[in-house]
Amino acid sequence: MNKQELINNIKAKKSFLCVGLDPDIEKMPEHLKGKLFEFNKEIIDATAKYTVAYKPNLAFYEVLGSEGVKAFEETVKYIQENHPDIFIIADAKRGDIGNTSKMYAKGLFEHTNVDAITVAPYMGEDSVTPFLGYEGKWVILLALTSNKGSQDFQFGKDENGTPLFEKVLRKSAEWGDDSNMMYVVGATQGKMFEEIRRIAPKSFLLVPGVGAQGGSLSEVVKYGITPECGLLVNSSRGIIHASKDADFASIAGEKAKELQEEMAQLLAENHII
Amino acid sequence: MNKQELINNIKAKKSFLCVGLDPDIEKMPEHLKGKLFEFNKEIIDATAKYTVAYKPNLAFYEVLGSEGVKAFEETVKYIQENHPDIFIIADAKRGDIGNTSKMYAKGLFEHTNVDAITVAPYMGEDSVTPFLGYEGKWVILLALTSNKGSQDFQFGKDENGTPLFEKVLRKSAEWGDDSNMMYVVGATQGKMFEEIRRIAPKSFLLVPGVGAQGGSLSEVVKYGITPECGLLVNSSRGIIHASKDADFASIAGEKAKELQEEMAQLLAENHII
Repeated sequence: MNKQELINNIKAKKSFLCVGLDPDIEKMPEHLKGKLFEFNKEIIDATAKYTVAYKPNLAFYEVLGSEGVKAFEETVKYIQENHPDIFIIADAKRGDIGNTSKMYAKGLFEHTNVDAITVAPYMGEDSVTPFLGYEGKWVILLALTSNKGSQDFQFGKDENGTPLFEKVLRKSAEWGDDSNMMYVVGATQGKMFEEIRRIAPKSFLLVPGVGAQGGSLSEVVKYGITPECGLLVNSSRGIIHASKDADFASIAGEKAKELQEEMAQLLAENHII
Repeated sequence: MNKQELINNIKAKKSFLCVGLDPDIEKMPEHLKGKLFEFNKEIIDATAKYTVAYKPNLAFYEVLGSEGVKAFEETVKYIQENHPDIFIIADAKRGDIGNTSKMYAKGLFEHTNVDAITVAPYMGEDSVTPFLGYEGKWVILLALTSNKGSQDFQFGKDENGTPLFEKVLRKSAEWGDDSNMMYVVGATQGKMFEEIRRIAPKSFLLVPGVGAQGGSLSEVVKYGITPECGLLVNSSRGIIHASKDADFASIAGEKAKELQEEMAQLLAENHII
């Protein structure tokens, strides 16, 4: 999916919501425990009209080994067949030497055929560029993450006073552009969005951390929105595990709808719709 | 496997060789094309007596999706059942927010039951520590990698002149120690081993990049060896894909034997055996 198609979907659905499909076995209703695909299917059916993206995090599938990865593949296929307008992000945070990253790219872009992969920048250029050669596919590079550990290295300043996350933004602009690269910027880093928009004014940002992790949607929008929206705001636990009971899917739908309505208003206020 | 057991195995086998099980379909002999487990099985049978560790890189399995991950699981099981003294490293380069890293740890340490996982440090403390709570299991943290892209961020110096890889070494020493944490240090960074040993004098280092990537074993040993050896030197393509023909396994055995013999001599010269 290219950038214009994504923007069109955002405008049509009045939403820049990404639902994180991170099914935690401990939090699933009793009758679906361990049945990752069946759980996801109900979540997808209940939330698809409010969301423009789904983001399965591979860890929640790999916890069950190859059987879990099969459920991930079934989930992607189900979205593609039933909601072909929805952008699918494999939240994998991969990154390895060139010939190895190429294998990750082939696996996720060719075999499973997702739209985007999250990539970790530590190993530099040749760990990222193998993901960039695919028409209509995206790298979503970790820049500033939503967790406490983001303090350990990402804010570390170099000799010129430039923090690492900023160096990642600047350096990666030599490898790709806003047509094939987005960045992860945590919602818990609200005030940093202004800074990031100075460096990456047109790039889409994938924003985790709203909800369970405490980030504020209105603050993210205030500092991060662009004339093309430029945001995909993710909520995982706050939607898919809002209820542990048999009504989990309808509750997930309600939670997604609440966020979509808030987003519709913010899109209108910012004259995007 | 704990540190002393690993050291005992190194002394018994007179080897600190790690064989990278990264089967590349393009380089496999015709009759085994795509049969990752069958290929690995022959490689393992031919190389087990020369090696103290196997390191399957997940990318080479995930390229085939869940079927590939199944071959990874079969490979680990085969090693465990037939060579229980061999240390198994899942080269996964994972790392995510705390509750997600916990899922990766459960998947690889509990479900598949490998001995060690390579972890990327960009997301900091809570992305690494969930991997550390397992008795006899190891985190192998990326410090200084063997690829060209290592230049992009890992060498970047902070305000005090400390490069990022050194900051990773120092900071991570607050999270684990040489009984549950090793570091990846590329063989192509030979002269840097002296520097790294100043910061991490007792830690095991996993050293990729000897062979296909051009690193020198003698230089790595010269600057990196400790009284406990403290090195696991990996070779992947240079062993498993040394031949594309039906004789690939016996050629792999010969290549592993050559490295083991060189290692035996270096261990003797350094009075470790």
